[in-house]
Amino acid sequence: MNFDPAEIADLDARDPLRAFRDEFQLRHGLIYVDGNSLGAAPKATAAQLAAAVSQQWGEGLITSWLGANWSTAPQRIGDKIARIIGAASGEVIAADSTSVNIFKALTAALSLRPDRHIILSESTNFPTDVYMMQGISAFSGGRIQSVAVEPEAVLERLDEDVAVLLLTQVHYKSGLVRDMAEVTRRAHEKGVLVIWDLSHSAGAIEVDLNGAKADFAVGCGYKYLNGGPGAPAFLFVAERHHSARPVLSGWFGHASPFTFEEDYRPAEGITRFLCGTPPVLGLVALEAGVDLLCRADMRELRKKSLRLSQLFIEQMEERCGEFGFTLVSPLEPDLRGSQISYAHPNSYEIVQALKAFEVIGDFRAPDVLRFGLTPLYLRYADIVEAVERIREVCVTRAWDKPEYRERAAVT
Amino acid sequence: MNFDPAEIADLDARDPLRAFRDEFQLRHGLIYVDGNSLGAAPKATAAQLAAAVSQQWGEGLITSWLGANWSTAPQRIGDKIARIIGAASGEVIAADSTSVNIFKALTAALSLRPDRHIILSESTNFPTDVYMMQGISAFSGGRIQSVAVEPEAVLERLDEDVAVLLLTQVHYKSGLVRDMAEVTRRAHEKGVLVIWDLSHSAGAIEVDLNGAKADFAVGCGYKYLNGGPGAPAFLFVAERHHSARPVLSGWFGHASPFTFEEDYRPAEGITRFLCGTPPVLGLVALEAGVDLLCRADMRELRKKSLRLSQLFIEQMEERCGEFGFTLVSPLEPDLRGSQISYAHPNSYEIVQALKAFEVIGDFRAPDVLRFGLTPLYLRYADIVEAVERIREVCVTRAWDKPEYRERAAVT
Repeated sequence: MNFDPAEIADLDARDPLRAFRDEFQLRHGLIYVDGNSLGAAPKATAAQLAAAVSQQWGEGLITSWLGANWSTAPQRIGDKIARIIGAASGEVIAADSTSVNIFKALTAALSLRPDRHIILSESTNFPTDVYMMQGISAFSGGRIQSVAVEPEAVLERLDEDVAVLLLTQVHYKSGLVRDMAEVTRRAHEKGVLVIWDLSHSAGAIEVDLNGAKADFAVGCGYKYLNGGPGAPAFLFVAERHHSARPVLSGWFGHASPFTFEEDYRPAEGITRFLCGTPPVLGLVALEAGVDLLCRADMRELRKKSLRLSQLFIEQMEERCGEFGFTLVSPLEPDLRGSQISYAHPNSYEIVQALKAFEVIGDFRAPDVLRFGLTPLYLRYADIVEAVERIREVCVTRAWDKPEYRERAAVT
Repeated sequence: MNFDPAEIADLDARDPLRAFRDEFQLRHGLIYVDGNSLGAAPKATAAQLAAAVSQQWGEGLITSWLGANWSTAPQRIGDKIARIIGAASGEVIAADSTSVNIFKALTAALSLRPDRHIILSESTNFPTDVYMMQGISAFSGGRIQSVAVEPEAVLERLDEDVAVLLLTQVHYKSGLVRDMAEVTRRAHEKGVLVIWDLSHSAGAIEVDLNGAKADFAVGCGYKYLNGGPGAPAFLFVAERHHSARPVLSGWFGHASPFTFEEDYRPAEGITRFLCGTPPVLGLVALEAGVDLLCRADMRELRKKSLRLSQLFIEQMEERCGEFGFTLVSPLEPDLRGSQISYAHPNSYEIVQALKAFEVIGDFRAPDVLRFGLTPLYLRYADIVEAVERIREVCVTRAWDKPEYRERAAVT
């Protein structure tokens, strides 16, 4: 389908989410299709961080732990994220990195399945997920086995030896969406617990953790939650698993951290899965991003995301069909996250050259171009224009020209 | 000894560190003696964070990982911290929380002593240190034993079953300084590795990790490093131990994180002890604090710190001798960190009431008042004045008056 500019303008004018774009700092002319790597900066974040530094920290000093509610920020922000991912209040904390939270979820799951010795994932999962599994296996001296099978073989590998299955809901490279409810059901049939990595789901698609009876979930604060570079991640533990004893049993997960007891005694509820002192400044920035997202209707967000990706695919076929791009993402809307990926022999060079044309996407080895389509701040017109610029790069083979390569390297 | 105001003014006028006070945001009239809980805010931090948000993140977006050197911030800041604690370049990273770094150090040490099964500490250590040990023990199913003995019994407990000893150099409650070189030497005689928790040392006293042949160290970014609430912590691993395999084997510790290999392959050097994506905004704030400290001469810092605490002890004896304070900190300067603690039956109430008199110290259960004397921003006149206000609180029994209790609760 070929859209004319008036049609596109009309789509943008009627977009119920159109007001959100103005909440972000996005320089004029830039088309930012890398929100799945690092979400754009909400305009509110700078002011909220400035207040946290100058007023809360600078003036309030130590008293801000209570006075500015720093001490409950992990749970408060967790409750907000819970609304985005279909969890209940009291089931989510914002804390640590995704990798560390994966460790927490894996070890908690293992403690709930003490007679099982396999932790399972798929071989093409985002690497840190599998690396964390391998670390646990090495530390256990081989008692715990880390197994990663081909994506298609995951369900048939489930058996009574498997303690926990760790899967990413939306694949980081292809954007393929796993059926969370069905996979969880199949795992539970074998007594296997499931950890869902929502790094590419939270804020990107509708997620219903409790509807799917998920056991654990982790996810990233700096992608679609727009929490800033290296933002604190989040951890979901279904209420029925709150009795699990944390391995990373730091003082902020203690039932009474400020009485300085000699023995670890886990706090009730999700709080026990905190470990060290919460990263306040990172949490302030994360909260600004999450607050913005909480104002959006997730159904509208998903609807727009799919329309953006549909338009992207169609325009790519129409305008760049002759340049050898192979669609990696699923055509079927239900199976598609909020990104579109293509394989191309020159993918790295194209991504680099595109920066000189003010289109920022990203490259994933060995040959994938990945375009994150964040519905909060992308317009339909941006999609059309992005494809035009990709076409220009391909027509001129811009990546062969040293001036573009140099400019790209600088940005 | 009783000082007259002119003498005190003269001490401040001749203080080689006096210019540093103006680098911090400290409201007029406030005497902040809680820098050992949360260091004060450097004035530079706000501007550097604002630039990181609006320019690096807002404008540079994903390209700032390289363009603004986000990706090497943990090592770069680690190198700066190394100078403060007697480590070499390439031996320190800024990352995660102190608790998580304790876990990394403990598990790395265990991997270097696979035939030993005890991790040892003292019973009065800062709780999170022992809690993290207990988490490892529980996860090992009892194979690893967590043992905490009385402070005096630590050295005699060292034997061939002990893999690693975890001690805090400056005690969080009393401020007592352990002899790092001697303890390390005694531990090494038995083949025991040593982890030093420098939370109350780094930036407070002179530390010489390599001089003491220390194996590992961890420490806090938000106390004397003035890195902000919940700042990233740091981890020191002596170069000779860089071959240890991390248990928290996340993608940022991988030899090649962006080639997305299926198996974990640790990076060379200290980088392997990174785990998840670095917390950029927290690191920016931490770096501002560390940069300030790097400009100070650590010998002058220590000298001033001891003079401040000596003055504090003398003034307390002189002006508050009749109010029942018992000095908990050592009188011997070499054994004293940068804090002075007293036990008092009304310690909690006194700390609360003092807030109404613009003196912020803190309380540590069950009965300790703790005053952190940060030489970078405290003046000799502040010490004299703080003691006068403590005297006023005691003379008037301010804690019995509801108006002070209320005001204290608000701040």
